[in-house]
Amino acid sequence: MPPDTPPIRALVFDIFGTVVDWRGSLIREGQALGARRGRHADWAALADAWRAGYYPAMARVARGELGWTSIDTLHRLILDEILPRFGLDDLPEAERQQLNRAWHRLDPWPDSVRGLTRLKTRHVIATLSNGNVSLLVNMARHGGLPWDTVFSAELFQAYKPDARVYQGAARLLDLPCDQVLMVAAHPSDLAGAQRAGLRTAYIPRPLERGEGGWMEPVGDLRFDLTADSLEALADQLGCA
Amino acid sequence: MPPDTPPIRALVFDIFGTVVDWRGSLIREGQALGARRGRHADWAALADAWRAGYYPAMARVARGELGWTSIDTLHRLILDEILPRFGLDDLPEAERQQLNRAWHRLDPWPDSVRGLTRLKTRHVIATLSNGNVSLLVNMARHGGLPWDTVFSAELFQAYKPDARVYQGAARLLDLPCDQVLMVAAHPSDLAGAQRAGLRTAYIPRPLERGEGGWMEPVGDLRFDLTADSLEALADQLGCA
Repeated sequence: MPPDTPPIRALVFDIFGTVVDWRGSLIREGQALGARRGRHADWAALADAWRAGYYPAMARVARGELGWTSIDTLHRLILDEILPRFGLDDLPEAERQQLNRAWHRLDPWPDSVRGLTRLKTRHVIATLSNGNVSLLVNMARHGGLPWDTVFSAELFQAYKPDARVYQGAARLLDLPCDQVLMVAAHPSDLAGAQRAGLRTAYIPRPLERGEGGWMEPVGDLRFDLTADSLEALADQLGCA
Repeated sequence: MPPDTPPIRALVFDIFGTVVDWRGSLIREGQALGARRGRHADWAALADAWRAGYYPAMARVARGELGWTSIDTLHRLILDEILPRFGLDDLPEAERQQLNRAWHRLDPWPDSVRGLTRLKTRHVIATLSNGNVSLLVNMARHGGLPWDTVFSAELFQAYKPDARVYQGAARLLDLPCDQVLMVAAHPSDLAGAQRAGLRTAYIPRPLERGEGGWMEPVGDLRFDLTADSLEALADQLGCA
């Protein structure tokens, strides 16, 4: 970054895909369910279909077709819709609830905990996710993610990339937007952060959708920083 | 507690006086300022006057005389008002700002970090303070307070003991109010939590206002738990 840029005081993080491996974790949860109940299904395809339902569901909230609805509730609506496609329409209610809570137990990428721990030595670190607060708190406890605090779209009743989410986080941190760095694996999220006045760090996660899986194109977006992992980001920001 | 009571899933904590020693910390900050600038003042009396201005200032917000105003801003209004009484009316702006930020650097009571660390092994732990989010985040970093997340009156635009604050925290945790334990040194805060449906733990802090200092009377209030320290609370809740 040019030497005259304002200092970065706080880092806020996208979570699904950026800090945790939602796809690998959901596949493992599905396999465990299958083993427990003797059920077979294409758990990778189920994970992909579940995630694919996520953006249209949030868009219904953004358009006002649905009132404010948490990600837990949206995940459950999508799950109930897709289970028949995978031969699981008779999955009992208790198993559905447990599977839906798999989103609270997603595992971090291998570099996440060490990277965050290093970044925290010099900067405030917080989530800034569309996931609801309780999901993010439970996930942090599950994976040992050392957040200073948890910010969620739920606090602002709007989903990223709505500017209110990014600006709301800066306001709660009592920082100018340009002293807050949004860290994400998804260019569209970073574009939203830029429009809202935040700085941006792009962490490509080529394995987010599995080996050779689709990645959101960067297009002609430019970011303040790009790093292959949260540890590499800590290197770039001079955090020992 | 009777054996048929619901389990406690999360603990939310009052901060000023319950987890941190605001008075001792402010006196030390005042003494440091005095040494730095060769100024003498009754720093204990200044700390007491500052804190005494806090409840009337919040009441002005609650009555709607002031729009939503953060504790940082209220602290500064009170500070400017009381400085002349202590012969400090000529204190420069930079020193006022630094002194006001002393509330971000309050030291924990000796049992707080160990107690919270033990409580966190089995329960979600969060602040639930009238202090603003950035103040609570900075204080946690200063004192090593291991919160899962930071909840503040600021998130609900209402100050404790308004029921919206307690119920708002339970809603963000996605828990019924009676599975959330409010932990505080002040009976009036616990009475507010009870009215809102939360469980209560009273932690008397006889040194909050110094040796022999005033303590808010308990009256005929009854609490679910009473403990002399956060470590004793961890003992009572079976947290190793």
